[in-house]
Amino acid sequence: MKAAETVDSNMNGQLTLDRVRIVLSRTSHPGNIGATARAMKTMGLSRLWLVAPASFPDPVADARASGAGDVLAGAQVVATLEEALAGTVFVAALSARRRELSLPRLQPRDAVSELVAWSEKGDVALVFGNEASGLTNAELGLCSRPVTIPTSPDYSSLNLAAAVQVLCYELRLAALGSPGRGAESAVLPQGSHVPAPATHDEVEGFYAHLETAIIASGFLDPENPRRLLPRMRRLFGRARLEKEEVAILRGILASFIDNK
Amino acid sequence: MKAAETVDSNMNGQLTLDRVRIVLSRTSHPGNIGATARAMKTMGLSRLWLVAPASFPDPVADARASGAGDVLAGAQVVATLEEALAGTVFVAALSARRRELSLPRLQPRDAVSELVAWSEKGDVALVFGNEASGLTNAELGLCSRPVTIPTSPDYSSLNLAAAVQVLCYELRLAALGSPGRGAESAVLPQGSHVPAPATHDEVEGFYAHLETAIIASGFLDPENPRRLLPRMRRLFGRARLEKEEVAILRGILASFIDNK
Repeated sequence: MKAAETVDSNMNGQLTLDRVRIVLSRTSHPGNIGATARAMKTMGLSRLWLVAPASFPDPVADARASGAGDVLAGAQVVATLEEALAGTVFVAALSARRRELSLPRLQPRDAVSELVAWSEKGDVALVFGNEASGLTNAELGLCSRPVTIPTSPDYSSLNLAAAVQVLCYELRLAALGSPGRGAESAVLPQGSHVPAPATHDEVEGFYAHLETAIIASGFLDPENPRRLLPRMRRLFGRARLEKEEVAILRGILASFIDNK
Repeated sequence: MKAAETVDSNMNGQLTLDRVRIVLSRTSHPGNIGATARAMKTMGLSRLWLVAPASFPDPVADARASGAGDVLAGAQVVATLEEALAGTVFVAALSARRRELSLPRLQPRDAVSELVAWSEKGDVALVFGNEASGLTNAELGLCSRPVTIPTSPDYSSLNLAAAVQVLCYELRLAALGSPGRGAESAVLPQGSHVPAPATHDEVEGFYAHLETAIIASGFLDPENPRRLLPRMRRLFGRARLEKEEVAILRGILASFIDNK
């Protein structure tokens, strides 16, 4: 049932992403709209809303969208942020600047957790303001939660589409599950060909061959072995040898000894 | 003492970020170089290396760098990836494509944990390939670990600078700690004595020695190398060689060849 569970989890994750609106308010540069569409599509998001863009559609946006022209083509263009947020149940807004009325600021990772949780109830939105001026206080007042991407205190000027990329990346991880640390992920393509590991006997056969070879070459003195072989065991043990690798290593050893 | 601890933690975090080289190999579009500089600076990174860029310096790069012109001005331009990696102790490489010789692929979050842990030993690098073709197999062979940003199966074409932004964002969180989340886990074995890792140059010296030796022994036919050396790179790359291990391995090779 493992495969079926993974499929279900991916389907649910995609349903979550389908409920997220990415809203750009009063964007000045059409290139940023195109780059936003591309950033969204790489992470499986498709619902772009544009509030009073300075120029849209625009060939610069098309060029920067690369293969994400379908996201641009499906964009909803509206006059006010209220329209873009109609029907949503939760709204997070990216905000770099300090405000006099400061709500608790969320980190991206925590913000996407909230977005994913609320998406079970209906549409949610993530709002990004103008490149230079950000969101107005009135716009921010329409949003449930401000989100701030942690930046260097010396320079906090993220490009708009780069900020979208970071948030959409976190959204994808949150929606589809962040694969366990160290383990191969469910999100990544699995190779159909996984190399066969060497058996215990094959690995021991290699160590014996190595010992014989380096005694023959004079590198290992059996009367004074120091810790050479344990160190080699430690090295190759870390690598966890594959069957074919043992064959190559033994071929190399044989080529040295047989040719002497 | 809380404030002092926070200052220390931030200072240490910045020291970590100062040890990270961001390496762009054979970048086609100068705009992506500028956008990379901006992405780096927002996250407190400053060490940019450019391997054979198609055009640099370039006014398009300057424009896209916005306030990060200092990162561009300090960029090191070199002819080969080997030069950019000289002296590093750990190299992660962004790789979207499948490879016949597949190492375990790291998620960004796990990759930055490793980078941060290794930075205690020396410089580390994060390598990004050409926009269209990515990294060559030869380039990937120079890197310890491939990293893949999880993307939609329908469209995986992240913009280069957007990929840099995601990795630098994760690096900053890992180096300075993610507020509100548990501490990032260290990947390296903790202990009073941690063996010194071999530098990039030492490891490359071993590979060159190995190649010479197995050509001399007749095991490797330079006219028909098959995939012997890439396979050996993959094996020893997994193990991440220590300084003393390289010395032993080269001693073994010398004992075979010198005694012939």
